[in-house]
Amino acid sequence: MKKPLISIMVGSDSDLLVLSDAVKVLDQFGVSFEITVSSAHRSPERTLRLVHNYYKNGVKVIIAAAGLAAHLAGVVAAHFPLPVIGVPLKGGALQGIDALYSTVQMPPGIPVATVGIDNAKNAGLLAVQILAVADKALEKKLTTYKKALSKTVEEKAKKLDAVGLKQYISEK
Amino acid sequence: MKKPLISIMVGSDSDLLVLSDAVKVLDQFGVSFEITVSSAHRSPERTLRLVHNYYKNGVKVIIAAAGLAAHLAGVVAAHFPLPVIGVPLKGGALQGIDALYSTVQMPPGIPVATVGIDNAKNAGLLAVQILAVADKALEKKLTTYKKALSKTVEEKAKKLDAVGLKQYISEK
Amino acid sequence: MKKPLISIMVGSDSDLLVLSDAVKVLDQFGVSFEITVSSAHRSPERTLRLVHNYYKNGVKVIIAAAGLAAHLAGVVAAHFPLPVIGVPLKGGALQGIDALYSTVQMPPGIPVATVGIDNAKNAGLLAVQILAVADKALEKKLTTYKKALSKTVEEKAKKLDAVGLKQYISEK
Amino acid sequence: MKKPLISIMVGSDSDLLVLSDAVKVLDQFGVSFEITVSSAHRSPERTLRLVHNYYKNGVKVIIAAAGLAAHLAGVVAAHFPLPVIGVPLKGGALQGIDALYSTVQMPPGIPVATVGIDNAKNAGLLAVQILAVADKALEKKLTTYKKALSKTVEEKAKKLDAVGLKQYISEK
Amino acid sequence: MKKPLISIMVGSDSDLLVLSDAVKVLDQFGVSFEITVSSAHRSPERTLRLVHNYYKNGVKVIIAAAGLAAHLAGVVAAHFPLPVIGVPLKGGALQGIDALYSTVQMPPGIPVATVGIDNAKNAGLLAVQILAVADKALEKKLTTYKKALSKTVEEKAKKLDAVGLKQYISEK
Amino acid sequence: MKKPLISIMVGSDSDLLVLSDAVKVLDQFGVSFEITVSSAHRSPERTLRLVHNYYKNGVKVIIAAAGLAAHLAGVVAAHFPLPVIGVPLKGGALQGIDALYSTVQMPPGIPVATVGIDNAKNAGLLAVQILAVADKALEKKLTTYKKALSKTVEEKAKKLDAVGLKQYISEK
Amino acid sequence: MKKPLISIMVGSDSDLLVLSDAVKVLDQFGVSFEITVSSAHRSPERTLRLVHNYYKNGVKVIIAAAGLAAHLAGVVAAHFPLPVIGVPLKGGALQGIDALYSTVQMPPGIPVATVGIDNAKNAGLLAVQILAVADKALEKKLTTYKKALSKTVEEKAKKLDAVGLKQYISEK
Amino acid sequence: MKKPLISIMVGSDSDLLVLSDAVKVLDQFGVSFEITVSSAHRSPERTLRLVHNYYKNGVKVIIAAAGLAAHLAGVVAAHFPLPVIGVPLKGGALQGIDALYSTVQMPPGIPVATVGIDNAKNAGLLAVQILAVADKALEKKLTTYKKALSKTVEEKAKKLDAVGLKQYISEK
Repeated sequence: MKKPLISIMVGSDSDLLVLSDAVKVLDQFGVSFEITVSSAHRSPERTLRLVHNYYKNGVKVIIAAAGLAAHLAGVVAAHFPLPVIGVPLKGGALQGIDALYSTVQMPPGIPVATVGIDNAKNAGLLAVQILAVADKALEKKLTTYKKALSKTVEEKAKKLDAVGLKQYISEK
Repeated sequence: MKKPLISIMVGSDSDLLVLSDAVKVLDQFGVSFEITVSSAHRSPERTLRLVHNYYKNGVKVIIAAAGLAAHLAGVVAAHFPLPVIGVPLKGGALQGIDALYSTVQMPPGIPVATVGIDNAKNAGLLAVQILAVADKALEKKLTTYKKALSKTVEEKAKKLDAVGLKQYISEK
Repeated sequence: MKKPLISIMVGSDSDLLVLSDAVKVLDQFGVSFEITVSSAHRSPERTLRLVHNYYKNGVKVIIAAAGLAAHLAGVVAAHFPLPVIGVPLKGGALQGIDALYSTVQMPPGIPVATVGIDNAKNAGLLAVQILAVADKALEKKLTTYKKALSKTVEEKAKKLDAVGLKQYISEK
Repeated sequence: MKKPLISIMVGSDSDLLVLSDAVKVLDQFGVSFEITVSSAHRSPERTLRLVHNYYKNGVKVIIAAAGLAAHLAGVVAAHFPLPVIGVPLKGGALQGIDALYSTVQMPPGIPVATVGIDNAKNAGLLAVQILAVADKALEKKLTTYKKALSKTVEEKAKKLDAVGLKQYISEK
Repeated sequence: MKKPLISIMVGSDSDLLVLSDAVKVLDQFGVSFEITVSSAHRSPERTLRLVHNYYKNGVKVIIAAAGLAAHLAGVVAAHFPLPVIGVPLKGGALQGIDALYSTVQMPPGIPVATVGIDNAKNAGLLAVQILAVADKALEKKLTTYKKALSKTVEEKAKKLDAVGLKQYISEK
Repeated sequence: MKKPLISIMVGSDSDLLVLSDAVKVLDQFGVSFEITVSSAHRSPERTLRLVHNYYKNGVKVIIAAAGLAAHLAGVVAAHFPLPVIGVPLKGGALQGIDALYSTVQMPPGIPVATVGIDNAKNAGLLAVQILAVADKALEKKLTTYKKALSKTVEEKAKKLDAVGLKQYISEK
Repeated sequence: MKKPLISIMVGSDSDLLVLSDAVKVLDQFGVSFEITVSSAHRSPERTLRLVHNYYKNGVKVIIAAAGLAAHLAGVVAAHFPLPVIGVPLKGGALQGIDALYSTVQMPPGIPVATVGIDNAKNAGLLAVQILAVADKALEKKLTTYKKALSKTVEEKAKKLDAVGLKQYISEK
Repeated sequence: MKKPLISIMVGSDSDLLVLSDAVKVLDQFGVSFEITVSSAHRSPERTLRLVHNYYKNGVKVIIAAAGLAAHLAGVVAAHFPLPVIGVPLKGGALQGIDALYSTVQMPPGIPVATVGIDNAKNAGLLAVQILAVADKALEKKLTTYKKALSKTVEEKAKKLDAVGLKQYISEK
């Protein structure tokens, strides 16, 4: 088994389903990772211990996902010198705006690379892009991935042309 | 010198002016306190060390004030079993809404007693009220304080009656 | 039966279910409390009468929960010299942002210790923390509670490691 | 001196300048009024005493203006059976959105007739309109007022046509 | 049949259900009214014609309810010299914030008495309060109504005391 | 088959259902159009190629619909000298506010004619109005359309008068 | 003098300065226009009279600009079958969000082509684009305009390369 | 001169001052970079040409900063397979909320690593962190940087202890 380059931390196990989108991307790109549950507030010592271990063990990027007053990514970033990706989650009355502001509005000196609300897929992709900066094979896969994205759109457009709007909508 | 019962932590020294409103209240009620600068993100180890020392030394309430993605109060509350009061600060483009959400929307299990944006005076008063739960002398002072608040309003109303609206406004 | 130290006031009986989270916490910590329905707007005299009676009878903390233009906590705080905890509730088109602003943005002089939207559990915990300032037994329970929170997270993480992500999600 | 039909209550004497727009309207329409300072939170007993006196003395409409968690209009409405007009004020970090939500989102059963943020002029006019429902002379004045509003616009348009855009802007 | 004193205008027939809360209040207080559908945008001439007829026929207060860019109340107020009550409705992606701002933020000179989002009950009550300014019988009914509101709360509180929280919640 | 004057571009095929409201309008007015799927981000080259082809082939107006960080309309407008209509879509946690701001707040120099969130019908109508500027037959149809809108409202009002509120609501 | 094809209506003469950006664009493209002041609320009859006259006299596009509860564009669109461009203005506590929502969230059936807050320049350009749909000379000018926009950016970039960042900033 | 690893693109030359915070960080860490002005909307072809050239020339990270409907980072990310950092800028009535949403809420498939509003310093640091993933010397500098951040806080705290709050505030 490869040593993980990416660690995914989720503030609560109820967030694991959303994060499985990041897991799929990392699997798809063949990037080694680990995933665990740890809360900035309910298990703060564990969180710090994990971050320090990750760093010691060669983890290069941490993806941290939390909802509400989402402090996890910021707390991780305070202790980790390499990139931290924050995924604000949607739970609660404010629909994730609280998590977005809590994640992205970090003070100067401690950045968190924030992706969209619940957008774990983009967190996974961003982690891959970061590793690809020094990994030509990954970079190539990303170029291929971009082309595939475009191709998928074109195929949908072709199908729409072929079957017409009504038929297309009814099949969805 | 009395051992401090209240500790005030500010995320940045540029916030000290706002926090001086809390200091005035604590002085006015004769409550011992200390105040320092420590950031959840830029000096995370110092922040934890302080919180553990405060607790060991008998601090009963911590007031934590920060702006932007204001994690300070939440991080303090993760490590402190007694009441933590959060003061969201107004700095930055979002005018303190980011700090408010980051402070008040804590996950179940780790409360932060949040006051209004930039409202350090109320943070000081809330700390006094908390101590007053078991301190009859403080409780009495709070009752007197409430009466004085009301009296001040009545005096302004009396003056308004006496001098009339135009004169009153022009004197302000 | 012990004299209640905490009073919970809810603006409407439709809010009682949310508040039962606060009740559970107070029960769990063995803190005596009472709970009632009273509206700042529909039963204003009753509300004031209750607050004055609570104070006379030795209540130390009031938890006030309301939705929409949530004035209950503020009105209670205007008449009660000890800590008032406000729980903004989510009902209505604005999803609790109205209640949050109405509860937390109190004028200088009259604080309300505000917790997150619908977060009655944190209101209960904050009330316990306030009493614990002068109650070593409660303080100890809070320390134990914090450890249990952390332990629960660790157990979930262990289970995730053991069964893997897919299995873990499917069991939820 | 005529007995006042309208009472204006402001939560803080710093709001008096904004409220002078309401005063001007009431003067212009020859409606008797009184104005005073009273806070829902800092002078709650005075506020209730005033409201009960106003009602006993024949006041028909109360205009209540406050900022932040603006409870004044709601508290007044809880004790006054006739129309209460709320003016949310702009002070503080949230620019009056807090005051707007705190004023307008009243629970079913206790309405507050809310006007725009800082729009004391409209509060005055609405009070006049309410009295005009049973006062033909006032109603006529309102019809005349509406025509004058329209005329003022037409005169500005005429001037713009006459002097041209550049000149018009430079003269402002 | 009595000549209507209140007219209710709804921007779309899909809003009629919400408005039935206003209708119930007016029925309960025995106030004569009429209700119709007319849009500021889709039937603008009809809207103006109605407003002018209402005025000619002695209508004293118009309740106008609309969603989205809710112009109906403002357009009505531009043509009606007596009180116009605006009810912002919740339909659409912005959940009624658009309708609230479109209704309450009227320019100086043309007030709309705005109630909470979807709060047609309060619109009905406010209309009754306005008529009560010159109608002692209605005023008395409002005082009775206020007492009944308070009594209902007290009865719920009594029941809660009697059956306990668990039972109370389960019966709802 | 007529050469299309209008092109509808949707960022994702999951938006096609919403856009079918625009299609219905264009069909109703007999305006030739085409519709396709293309993303500003996932198929950027295709998007540009389409825009340049549309222009070359005589398309006069492009309707671009997207959700989230809705860049499609802006990207299209950067390359198309004639009118671009933007339809912000509601998908995602922010309910379309993100898409609205991303569509309407274009920098000076590159306008996007923005309609309401998910309001594809108005996008279709606006496209027709733009063509009608130089097409008397279309202009006439629009005048007829406006009259029909008004008539529909009047018919509903008549039915409401005839059957009464209760019956009307129950039939919906 | 040419018959105007575009009419600009501003809700208040204090908005004329912002609208002069639209005027400059129309002058630059040689499009005939007229500009006047008229309020949806303070001069409603004048507003309708103008709209009907504009239509009769061959005006093809109306630009309507207003702040607060900005109903002007919607009211104009209710009476005008050709394109109406709405410019939400920034005045007031809500910084133009109220005007944006009041302008863009029109009900299905009555579109307003909305541009960004205070973005009168884009309103002017959109009006030109609309006319250009059937005016080859204007279309050509727009293509030239787009190229000039791009060229200006390139010149700034060249200067930045030449003088360096420090110098460039200091010269601004 | 070293080949640039980082490219900074700003949507308008008026943003250069804000971006100089990113430039300072890159200089401080000795990372080679270039900076230019290019708009997604006003110079779209130039923007694409630059992105493709950057990629060909070995640029590893692009920092893209824009205000309003900030499409620049998204457009760049659509064409660049490696990490793109987005800096939402504060200009305009919405104070940067528009730019934040337009930058962070990217669709799945095309991430933008978003930092806080106007927080160019964090954009620079994040770029350095990304390069440090495969550059031990940079990683070491980041560790040193983190320590220096913490030291600065401690020195401020020490000074506050030494001179006292009043003196400290007055010297700022």
